[in-house]
Parts: sequence; structure tokens; C-alpha cells
Amino acid sequence: MMDTALMQDRAEGTEGADRYRNRLEALAGVLSAKGIDAWLIPMGDYHGSEYISPFFQLIAYYTGFTGSAATLLVVPDGGRARAFLWTDGRYFLQAEKELSGTGVILEKMGEKGCITLTERLQKLADANNSEGRTFVLGFDGRVVSIRQAEEIRNSLKDMDTGLITDCDLAGELWDRPPLTFGPVWELADAYSGESRSSKMNRVRESMQKEGAGALVLTALDEIAWLLNLRGEDIAYNPVCLSYLIILQDEAVLFTDADNLSQIEGCVIKPYDDFFGQLSRIDPSLTVWIDQGSASWRVLETLQSGSEREILQKPSPVIMMKAIKNETEREHIRRAHIKDGVAVTRWIYTLKKRSRSKSPDKAEKSELSESSELSEAERLLSLRREQEGFLSESFAPIIAFGPHGAIVHYEPDDESDATIRYGRGDYLLADTGGHYREGTTDITRTISLGMPDDEQKKLYTAVLAGHLRLLDACFLEGAAGSSLDQLARQPLYRLGYDYRHGTGHGVGYLLNVHEGPNAFRMKYTKENRLYEGMVTSDEPGVYLANRFGIRIEGLVLTVFSHESEYGRFLRFEPLTMVPFDRDSIDADLLNDEDKRVLNAYQKKICETISPFLSEEEHSWLEEETRPV
Amino acid sequence: MMDTALMQDRAEGTEGADRYRNRLEALAGVLSAKGIDAWLIPMGDYHGSEYISPFFQLIAYYTGFTGSAATLLVVPDGGRARAFLWTDGRYFLQAEKELSGTGVILEKMGEKGCITLTERLQKLADANNSEGRTFVLGFDGRVVSIRQAEEIRNSLKDMDTGLITDCDLAGELWDRPPLTFGPVWELADAYSGESRSSKMNRVRESMQKEGAGALVLTALDEIAWLLNLRGEDIAYNPVCLSYLIILQDEAVLFTDADNLSQIEGCVIKPYDDFFGQLSRIDPSLTVWIDQGSASWRVLETLQSGSEREILQKPSPVIMMKAIKNETEREHIRRAHIKDGVAVTRWIYTLKKRSRSKSPDKAEKSELSESSELSEAERLLSLRREQEGFLSESFAPIIAFGPHGAIVHYEPDDESDATIRYGRGDYLLADTGGHYREGTTDITRTISLGMPDDEQKKLYTAVLAGHLRLLDACFLEGAAGSSLDQLARQPLYRLGYDYRHGTGHGVGYLLNVHEGPNAFRMKYTKENRLYEGMVTSDEPGVYLANRFGIRIEGLVLTVFSHESEYGRFLRFEPLTMVPFDRDSIDADLLNDEDKRVLNAYQKKICETISPFLSEEEHSWLEEETRPV
Repeated sequence: MMDTALMQDRAEGTEGADRYRNRLEALAGVLSAKGIDAWLIPMGDYHGSEYISPFFQLIAYYTGFTGSAATLLVVPDGGRARAFLWTDGRYFLQAEKELSGTGVILEKMGEKGCITLTERLQKLADANNSEGRTFVLGFDGRVVSIRQAEEIRNSLKDMDTGLITDCDLAGELWDRPPLTFGPVWELADAYSGESRSSKMNRVRESMQKEGAGALVLTALDEIAWLLNLRGEDIAYNPVCLSYLIILQDEAVLFTDADNLSQIEGCVIKPYDDFFGQLSRIDPSLTVWIDQGSASWRVLETLQSGSEREILQKPSPVIMMKAIKNETEREHIRRAHIKDGVAVTRWIYTLKKRSRSKSPDKAEKSELSESSELSEAERLLSLRREQEGFLSESFAPIIAFGPHGAIVHYEPDDESDATIRYGRGDYLLADTGGHYREGTTDITRTISLGMPDDEQKKLYTAVLAGHLRLLDACFLEGAAGSSLDQLARQPLYRLGYDYRHGTGHGVGYLLNVHEGPNAFRMKYTKENRLYEGMVTSDEPGVYLANRFGIRIEGLVLTVFSHESEYGRFLRFEPLTMVPFDRDSIDADLLNDEDKRVLNAYQKKICETISPFLSEEEHSWLEEETRPV
Repeated sequence: MMDTALMQDRAEGTEGADRYRNRLEALAGVLSAKGIDAWLIPMGDYHGSEYISPFFQLIAYYTGFTGSAATLLVVPDGGRARAFLWTDGRYFLQAEKELSGTGVILEKMGEKGCITLTERLQKLADANNSEGRTFVLGFDGRVVSIRQAEEIRNSLKDMDTGLITDCDLAGELWDRPPLTFGPVWELADAYSGESRSSKMNRVRESMQKEGAGALVLTALDEIAWLLNLRGEDIAYNPVCLSYLIILQDEAVLFTDADNLSQIEGCVIKPYDDFFGQLSRIDPSLTVWIDQGSASWRVLETLQSGSEREILQKPSPVIMMKAIKNETEREHIRRAHIKDGVAVTRWIYTLKKRSRSKSPDKAEKSELSESSELSEAERLLSLRREQEGFLSESFAPIIAFGPHGAIVHYEPDDESDATIRYGRGDYLLADTGGHYREGTTDITRTISLGMPDDEQKKLYTAVLAGHLRLLDACFLEGAAGSSLDQLARQPLYRLGYDYRHGTGHGVGYLLNVHEGPNAFRMKYTKENRLYEGMVTSDEPGVYLANRFGIRIEGLVLTVFSHESEYGRFLRFEPLTMVPFDRDSIDADLLNDEDKRVLNAYQKKICETISPFLSEEEHSWLEEETRPV
């Protein structure tokens, strides 16, 4: 995920800070010259992607900050630049370090005293207005979603403001890496379970129902799912940079993928032709766009020059993609068995190293060389041994001891910690893979030696939360937010909580984060549970500078039973990796927790044992015996 | 609650049906003459009350329907009247019976094929518009809330419509019972825990914070709470018909209560002066109204003739009232001990009758005379024996056998069932009282003989749900909807559910239903839990024509513990009545359920035993021994 050019900058130490100052001042100069009072740079691409390619790493270029979530605001101030960077709790420490010396003001989101982006914009607008001047805000309309842009406009609606969104002033000053288009490959119907034309028919039915003559898709995973195409244009997400315009009798795919000359049912045009073509859609057609993923520029383009009807509504592909078909479900189960074998074998070695009282020479050398990065590499090798494995589904989090308490820790050359075995430390491993049969995402927290009572108490509470959500029963269409509490109850009783959602939807050989399904405290009306959805179940607890515990498995929503009250659903566990036996204090589980735990452990032991060595198998039997 | 005039109508059988037809046609005639195409009559008063006094029983007058929830639409149709009545599942059977022969079309809300009010209005408007005529809808603007009126207007916004809301055409045709004003009495500070002036100061602080120069209160329980006044103008709700306008330096109470000539801090004016005074509020003041409870007429009056600022926002009193102060909490605990003694003694007699193999003569006579109504009377007598008891807090639901499956069953002379002891039937009793120290609301389902396995299974599932919600731990401000699932989980597993919320807020010697706190599936942003709130916990299961089981207790939200994650809260059970020992199958409870159950039973036994006879006490000890 890291841009090599940025790595060099960082290596140059404080000299780098001056470089960022200079870049910000150059931008401020351009803004001043054009009469723009503030320039907004979100961390985003033209498609609302969660991960962005190096071409879009503008914030890293201007500030040196390399975290995955931030917003930058640059304000010219008499020949100099004032700059504000907003990021969340995951990145406070990293941002402080990386922004040091750059003069960029760090706004810690969610902390007391943080001035939000909206408040900052209002203050700036107020200051301008009070001097009788219009406040002019600018951003590249292609990297801000319609919803975000509307929010910004709303917050400034009572003030005298102007908006410039038709240029990329920050990008033009950067000799940026190219926008690259890798090869695209087709997912056979045997894997997708539904042909492209069948999917297109369903989408066109939705369009007809809504009275939309055209549907514009800009989210990369939606296009990939719909066309049964996969690519490699974004790290970890097997998608290709593209736009798709669907009419009732035609579909146009905009991409520069060099190996794609034609696909059935689609005309292929160059990526850069998209906005031109968008403006030429027959003005008599109602055009359907999704305000959550489509960019402000998409809306502006559709609105300019014609009085057309625009339907703003979540894309019909979101629900179709979230509800896995029978083929997908069967494949996902298989992918998880393969993944379970790889991860379980990896854990077995860690446990063996932790338990060996007098390591022999070969083991000693292994032990001294084992680090977070080397273990990530070793786990990747084990996954590669599995047939159909393609790549990791996100940057592996292998976090030793205190690193486990950093929720989104990723080891790199600088942070890489040596792993100490046999002393009761925890290793938190949150990793996943893309297989031809689907995408996995699993977290296990592994005790390297005997955990103490506090560790066991907390591990068991996290496990109980995981099991209670896993064991939930609910009516079709239940809100994901209504189940979140089940996973938090055991931790709440001990005075703990985790500052993240309990789970997210997962794609099918696609993005490891996909909506609309999720387990979150916050209610949203789109987040409802239906048969065939895949969601993660991942409560955790984090003790800063000490250790972190997270337990994650993916669950498939399946039919349970039916009555006059409706269809009752439950979860089928997909993940096939044992829990950490040494960390479970059975006295802290109630009898229902134990029943669910024992059933899970038994099932995974039976399922993956055929693929293990005798040694691994006998360890697994012991690890999964009933509590 | 029943209007005597209506009772007579009903007694007259089918002749009554003609009477309703005539009344509807008289109204249709007036509508035609005035060019009005439809007249809407909601079940409501001028204050958005849940219960309404006889003066407002227009729907019963025009249709004979006496249920507590309905909406009537009357459409003149060439000299005749078409009428549509919407009601919910609780009242389908009753409505079918009562509307028989009247020609009124029953729309069963929530059933397939039901045309909603909105859809009906749209159809009517469409029909008119297609003939080139404006669709004119009318209703009395005093009995429709701003929110309801806005919803109706929104649903018709694309059509050519007119609205007439400044008259009461339906009421004018009825020689209606008078609007009566009973005596008002003052709740001493020793009971309210906060003086009127202190409450007023807090309200005025809220007004200042919002920049509101005036606050208009129209909800009767808000006025009663704020002024520490109680009345008897609405059955079961100890409130007085009134409006209140609060300015920073003055407050005007509009009421005709005959024993109220002055109260400190308020000017008293006649009830009918309200709208006149409202229109004369200084137009430079921003006026705060609550769109959920204030009527459409309030908004219209404020808007007519001046360009004033109107702030539409939930009333500040709602949260103040919902969070009980220390005095209220202490009193509520005491009220529940008294209530628990009365209800437990009542249950003891029922159990004794059910168990006696060969009843003696006195008992035999009791047994043969025992009916739902007589038991309601006997329970009321037992409550009356408690010091400080004032009245019932709602119409008692004493439902024998199959009646228990009717969620909102209320026995009356016609339905009153004889109670059969010793045969394993259930008696469902949902009752409550107003005491000087607070309001109670409790449901127990009592087995009159040995329940069978199915009854025990379902009783135990309902109980487990009740206990799991009772045992919840959550963060301050958690959404009530996030806890609802805890109570439903055990029933879901068996394929059952209940079609009502799991709990509602309860007032302090005020309305038995009050917001904003509740346990419901549906998320609303106002429904958040804070220390000091009182809420019911009442899961249930209903087997049509067989039996119903509901278990309800009130819970007080209390502080539990605190950490860096926030303030954790839990529930303290207020209700002091044992569960039905005979119906509990301990094998169906997990060990945590048993712990909570045993702790509850032990606590109530210890708390109320000092007030019981020796005989009652020894029964209670047996009834509450650990499972």
C-alpha cells in the first residue's frame, strides 16, 4: 500500500518537513492567485474507494501523512499556507510523528476541542463575510461524493460563499505517479453463479421499476460484480478502474485495461471519455445515480446544460451483490476451509514454539528471526500453498504484544517487532485472503505462553461476545444495529468496550469491506440482514501499551425456521480456525456460551483435520476439546 | 372510559347501525354544501393525549366504534356518505362487530390489501384532479398534530388540493357531552422533589439556549409535571385540561379548573382564551412549539398575521420529566412495594383457590362468583388498602384463558368470563395504580392449576426474555431500540414473537405511557437511556383462542460503573411481585438467567414479606425459592 516515493521522503527526516512546507506554499500561491480562500483535499479517488492508488495520494504528497483516512484543508494566508488535517483515533500518534515540522495543524476527530471541518469552514466563511467578501471554497469535484458535497454546502448555506469544483489544482502541481490500468480477467459463471447478462437483466428491471432510463455506476466493486470482471488496479481490492453507464439497450464500460478489447453486452470506451459521454446522455432519460458513491462532478455534469430528471438513490447493485447466490455461498464455504487450514497450521507453529521448553538448534534460529513481518510472510506462504489462492485481501495486521492494542496497526520495516515466545504475550493476527472461491477475513489472538488471569478474563469476555452474536436468532430484515449489543454485553460488565463496529459486510472475491450489512451501534435504514449475506463478527478489547484482543470470524446469514411471525434467520460460521484454548476461562462463560463454543470447535476440527498432518491434527483435537 | 350515551347506542343493536348511517349522512350533507371533498376525524383531543375524554369521542358518535385507536374519513358521495375507518390489529374483531350495518369500510392497518389513509387521500385527490377539480380536505386543526398534518400535506404535495382546518364540522352536528374540568390539586415539593419555580427556571434556561422568547406547552402531562399540579380531566391520567404559555418573565395557564384561582408564578386565564392569547404573543419573540404534540391550529395561529420565528423542536420538558429526580426515585420504589404487596396478596388467593382439592363452602361460593370483572374489583380493593393509593393507572386487563391472547383485552359486562380454577388455565393480569409516590404498571400471568409442557416452555421463554433485558448493561445514552432484541431472543428460537414493543416509559404519578424512553424494534433518535428513567419490560406470547402470556415489570435505569469508555448503566427492578413458580421450567433457562431470576425472587420476598400475613409469607417463600 505504501508509495515508494513517499518512503524516500520520510527517510530524509526533517529535511522532508521543509519539502512539505514548500509544496503547501506552492499550492497556497496558486489559490491566492485564483482568489480561492480554501482548498479541500479528501483521501479519495474518483470512485469513492476505501483504498486508493498512488495516483490519488495527494495528502501524503502535501503533508507526509501516510495513514488511510484523512482530510486536508489548505488556506492561503498572505503568501504562506495554513493547513489543517483531520484524522481519527487510529492515526493520532502516526500523524503527530509524520506531520512534525510541516506546520500542518492536526485536528483529532472525536477528541474534545477538535474543530470539525464544518466548523472550520464556517469560521473561515464568517471571517470573510464579516469583511464583506465572499468565501470561495474549492475542491476537485471528482474526489468528493455528492453526499459529502451536499453536507458541506448545507453547512455554509446561510453564508455568502462560492464553490469551485471543476479543476484539480492540488494534483496539477504534483508530478504524480500515473493512473495505471492492469490486466482484467473474467470470473467464470461457475464461480460467479450468475452470468453477466442475467445480472444486467435484473439491474435493468430495477431501472424500469424506478422509471430510470440510465444508471450510472461509479463504485468499482459494483462494476466488477455486475460484469463478472476482476482487476488489480487497487491494492488488495481485485477491481479495475472503470465507470459504467447502463441504458435499457446498451451499456458502456469506460476503462483503459489493455487486455480488454470487448466483452459481451458492453461497449468499451477509454476511461477518460466518461464525463463527456455522461453529458451526452439523452436528456429525456431519467438518470439514476447513487449519492453515496457518485462524485459531485457526476451530478454537475448531468445537471449542466439540460433539465433532465435525476434519481438519487442507492445503486440496485448494492443489495444484489450483498446477497450471495447459492454458488457463491458454496464456494465461500470452501474458501474458508482452505483459509482455515493455512491459518490453523500457522497458529500451530506459533503454539509449538511457545511451548517448547528447550528448543533445538533449528528452532532457536527460527525463534530469533521471527518478527511480525516475517510471520506475515510465513502466513502468506501457507495461504499460497492452498489451491485457488490469489492474494491477500488487505494489509496483514500481525501485532505482537502492545502493538495489538493499536486497532489498525500494520507492521512495517520501522515498527516491525521481534516475537518473543513462551512468555505469555499475545499475538493478534488480523489477515485475509482472496481465493477464486471468495474472500476471507479472520482475526485470532494467540497466547505465546500461558496468559495471566487478566488476559484470560478479557479474552473470555471477547469470546463470549463473539459467540453470542454468532448464536443470534432474528427476523428477516432485522437491523444490523439491533444485534450489535449482543457482542458488547460481556465486555460492558467489566467496564470495557471497543471503539469500532462489531462487523462489516464482505465481498465475494471482492472488497473485504462492503455494505450495506454491518453490525454497528449506529442505526442506518439500509443496514438490514437477509439470507446470503456475509458479515464479520469481531469484538475486541484494547489496553494501550499492553495488549489487544480481537476475535473475528465471518458469518453467513442462513434460514433457520418460519412461523406466522415471519422467517427467522441465524448465522452459520464460515471461518474455520480454533479459538485460543489457553486463554479461555470456562468459569466465565455461561452454559449457552459453552454449548456454542464446543459446537464451533468440534465443527472446525472435523472439517479441517483431513487437510492437516498427524501432528497438527492431534494438537487441534486437544485445542478444540469441549470446555 | 366508556361514554354512557354510546353504551345505549350499542345496546340497541342493529337499529343503532341506522343511527350511525344517518349521522354520517348528515355530516356528508354539510360537507357537500361547503364544497369539502373529505373530512378527517382522528381519535384525538386538543392536546395529543393518548386517552381522550367523552367530549372528543367523535368516532364513536359517528360509527359506534369504541376502540382506543382509529382514524375516520368521511367522503360525501352524491347525497350519501362513504366512510373509511382505520384501526390496528388489536381492534379488528371489535371493529368488525361494532361497524356491522353502518356501511363504514374497515381498513385493517398492517394487513395486506389495506389502503392506507395516505393512499386513500391520494386516490380521492387524483379522481378530483382528473376531472379538473381541486381536492378539498378538511379537519379540525385542533385535533391533528403539526407532524400529522405535515405528513398529510406532503403526501398530497404534487396534487391540486385545498385544506380547511379552521372549523369543527363534525363536532357541531353532535350534541356532545361537555368538556369538563375537575378539581386540580398540588403535588407538594416533598413528593415532586423539585419546586415549580426550580423547574420553570430550568425550562427558561433551555429557552434562552435555543433563543426562544416563548414556549407553548400543550401536552397535558408536561404541564402537570412542570407546575406540580394534578387533575382528573382524563380517565386514568391525573392531568387537567390546560395550555401553558411561558415567557421569560411570565407564564399563563389556560384552564377552567374551578378550584384554581391562583398559583405562584402563573397567571390563570380561561381555557378558551388560549388561541386568542397565542395570536397576541409579541411577534418579535421566537416561539418554541413541539410538532409532535402541538396541534396544527397552534402553528396556523402563530403564522397568521405575523412573520415571527417559530422553533419546532421537542419540548424541553420531555427529558426533564423522563429523568426522575432522587425524591421521585425513592418514592417510586416505595409505591412499588405497596403495589407489590397488594398484587402478591391477590395472586396468593388465586393460587390458593387453584390448589384447594376440596374447597369448603365459603370458598365454593367465591369460586363460582369469580370473574374477570370481579377479580379486577378485588385487586382494586387490595390496592385501596395501601396508604397513598389514588386510582388505577389504566383500565385493568384481567384476561382469563383465551382472552389473554387478545393483546389489549379489557373485560366489560359483555365479555366478562367466569374464572375456572384448578385446571391449568392462565389468568393474565395487566394492571397498575397511581399512588402519591408514583405510578405502577405490572403484568403477571398466573397459572390456575398445573400448566402443561407447552405453557411452561412458552412461559419460561417469555420470562427469560424479561430477565435478559432486566440484566442488560449499557452505556449512558444507548438507544432503547438496541436492547429490544435481548428480550426477544428466547422466543425467536421457538418461532414466536410479539407484535408490540418490549417496553414504554412511565410517568411519576402521571401518564402510564410517556416518552421518550422505550424498548422498541424501531429506532428513533430521541429514544435514549439515561439514569433515572422508568421503563416497562414486558415481552409476551399470544396463541389466538388459547392463551396469552405476558410478564411485565418496571425498571429504573441506574448507574453501574464507569471507565474510560464512559458511564455504564443497568436496570434496577421496581416491581415487587413474584413470577409464577409453577410455570418455570428451569431446564430451559441458562445459568445466568437463573442467577437473575433467583436474585429477583429473593429480593422481592425479603422486601414485601414484612407486610404479609404469616400464611401469605410462607407461600411466598416457597414461590420464590431458588430454581
